[in-house]
Amino acid sequence: MINTENVQQQPVAKYKLLGKYCKLIGSEQINGNDAAIIETKNKHKFIYTSALFTEHIDFDLSYFPLKHLGYKVIVASIMGILAMNGSPKKVRINIALSNRFSENAIDELMNGIILCCSKYKVNIVGLDFKSSVSGLIISTSTTGEVELEKIVYWNGAKENELICVTGDLGSAYAGLILLEREKKVFEADPTQQPDFIGVDYLLERYLKPELPSEILNTLSQHNIIPTSMLNLNNGLASGLIYLCDASKLGCTIFEDKLPIEILAFEKLKELNIVATTIALNGGEDYELLFTIKQDDYEKIKDIKEISVIGFITSESSGRNIITHDNRQFELIAQGF
Amino acid sequence: MINTENVQQQPVAKYKLLGKYCKLIGSEQINGNDAAIIETKNKHKFIYTSALFTEHIDFDLSYFPLKHLGYKVIVASIMGILAMNGSPKKVRINIALSNRFSENAIDELMNGIILCCSKYKVNIVGLDFKSSVSGLIISTSTTGEVELEKIVYWNGAKENELICVTGDLGSAYAGLILLEREKKVFEADPTQQPDFIGVDYLLERYLKPELPSEILNTLSQHNIIPTSMLNLNNGLASGLIYLCDASKLGCTIFEDKLPIEILAFEKLKELNIVATTIALNGGEDYELLFTIKQDDYEKIKDIKEISVIGFITSESSGRNIITHDNRQFELIAQGF
Repeated sequence: MINTENVQQQPVAKYKLLGKYCKLIGSEQINGNDAAIIETKNKHKFIYTSALFTEHIDFDLSYFPLKHLGYKVIVASIMGILAMNGSPKKVRINIALSNRFSENAIDELMNGIILCCSKYKVNIVGLDFKSSVSGLIISTSTTGEVELEKIVYWNGAKENELICVTGDLGSAYAGLILLEREKKVFEADPTQQPDFIGVDYLLERYLKPELPSEILNTLSQHNIIPTSMLNLNNGLASGLIYLCDASKLGCTIFEDKLPIEILAFEKLKELNIVATTIALNGGEDYELLFTIKQDDYEKIKDIKEISVIGFITSESSGRNIITHDNRQFELIAQGF
Repeated sequence: MINTENVQQQPVAKYKLLGKYCKLIGSEQINGNDAAIIETKNKHKFIYTSALFTEHIDFDLSYFPLKHLGYKVIVASIMGILAMNGSPKKVRINIALSNRFSENAIDELMNGIILCCSKYKVNIVGLDFKSSVSGLIISTSTTGEVELEKIVYWNGAKENELICVTGDLGSAYAGLILLEREKKVFEADPTQQPDFIGVDYLLERYLKPELPSEILNTLSQHNIIPTSMLNLNNGLASGLIYLCDASKLGCTIFEDKLPIEILAFEKLKELNIVATTIALNGGEDYELLFTIKQDDYEKIKDIKEISVIGFITSESSGRNIITHDNRQFELIAQGF
């Protein structure tokens, strides 16, 4: 959940800071995964993850309905558990809000939170409110469970394995761009009605994302355990870089294999935006990036929610994308 | 960690909201404790808690050194684990900051975090940075372990049991009041030097609190397991009310048994503030409130860090404080 205007500013500083402090703290402690393991003795693992959402950066309440926001915060919180192949179980929620929020507004937010927790069978085991002088802030802490032999980390990929993504990429960010555009139109002339005809899918992908839980079930039914996995909230390019960094490997992906919805492609084209850039760097896709062994290709090739977008290479080959017209570019993380 | 100006405004709304949503979600899910149990099958329990800290509400960077803030955030995060008689193990930290924070400033904050984690043997297993348009925001998610037979909840107290607190109460909030006073003096006339002579102890209690971990070890060595326990971050009065609510009981405490340092008493008196009010409602004390069986009194009466301040009564007797001059008042939660 990122504001379009902030997408280009943050990453360098963030990567630099993270690298520095992870080294200081000890890389074993922060091992680069979407969730941390709580317990290491038994075969059944308890894992947990945490997330922080702040108004103006992660969401804009001038077009984000509070009920949808509550729903999306839980979706985003659960993603880290799914990305380790886990089942989400419990969540604690801390909310800071200023006195501009009426009780009805808080009800809306809580209704979205409760709806999403109910849908994905997550128990709310902690809830706290406090004051804020700076808009709405929500932090969550989510636990899950996963069997030892099914747990998937960022760093399990091997050379020549296939790189897969779930769902489609870029639609959510295209939705965000449309919402931002209509906000500017409205601010300039409040009598203008927003023009959202035919773009419901894009708006829904941004405002009310769902989790790719079913795809994990499908993989499990086909006896496939991904060799590595990562959530795509922060964009495909940065996701691939994290994943390759963790395994000290390279990758090659193909522009024409990226699952971009035709609607997103066309709407972005109207705005003179290249859909591939958004699919790579927009973020906001609550989808999974994972690798599988080549032998598993036959099992997944007919699953329509999974796209094979490339393969893992040696580290020295770098991280590359091959374009439609067969040119090669290095992947650079722009999302965060 | 609360701003003096906000201490009176929040509680009613907060208690109302919490009551409402806890009922909606189901009281079994949010069962009123400082941490939640992750796992319920084995004898060894994993517990976790979460916390959110926001600038201007929880801390004022005009007088709060960033290194101390980092330290205090971890102390505050660990308290919920201690309050269930657990040992803290791991923490995940999410930090949102604006571009007014230099890398040196972030270093200071992280140094405090790392120092405190190292002192209390807590591993940092997650760290993330993001942008903020509204100052510094820190959220934490902390796990711990506790043996099944040693776990302590809010709701275990019984009638006639003794009410105890660790350490002293009100010193930290007195420190906060002094810091706020000197800030106002400085704002009115920047040539004025702050007058902090002889109040180091009060400032330290606010700016660099330590955890009462040793007292839990002492209790364990004396084979005492508290019957109920709660952390006092939000003030003694609200803590007693939570604890009595959880057990459907009443309490009587005695003003002259409250452990108030003479320095806090005198400094507050100079400011025309009644120390008892601050001890009851100030909050900011990283101390524990707990109940023990009467039979355990002999074992704890000589432990100087523990004060017996009253006893548990039936619910119909209410929650009361007996003053120095033998008058009785109902306890009202003003802290949050």
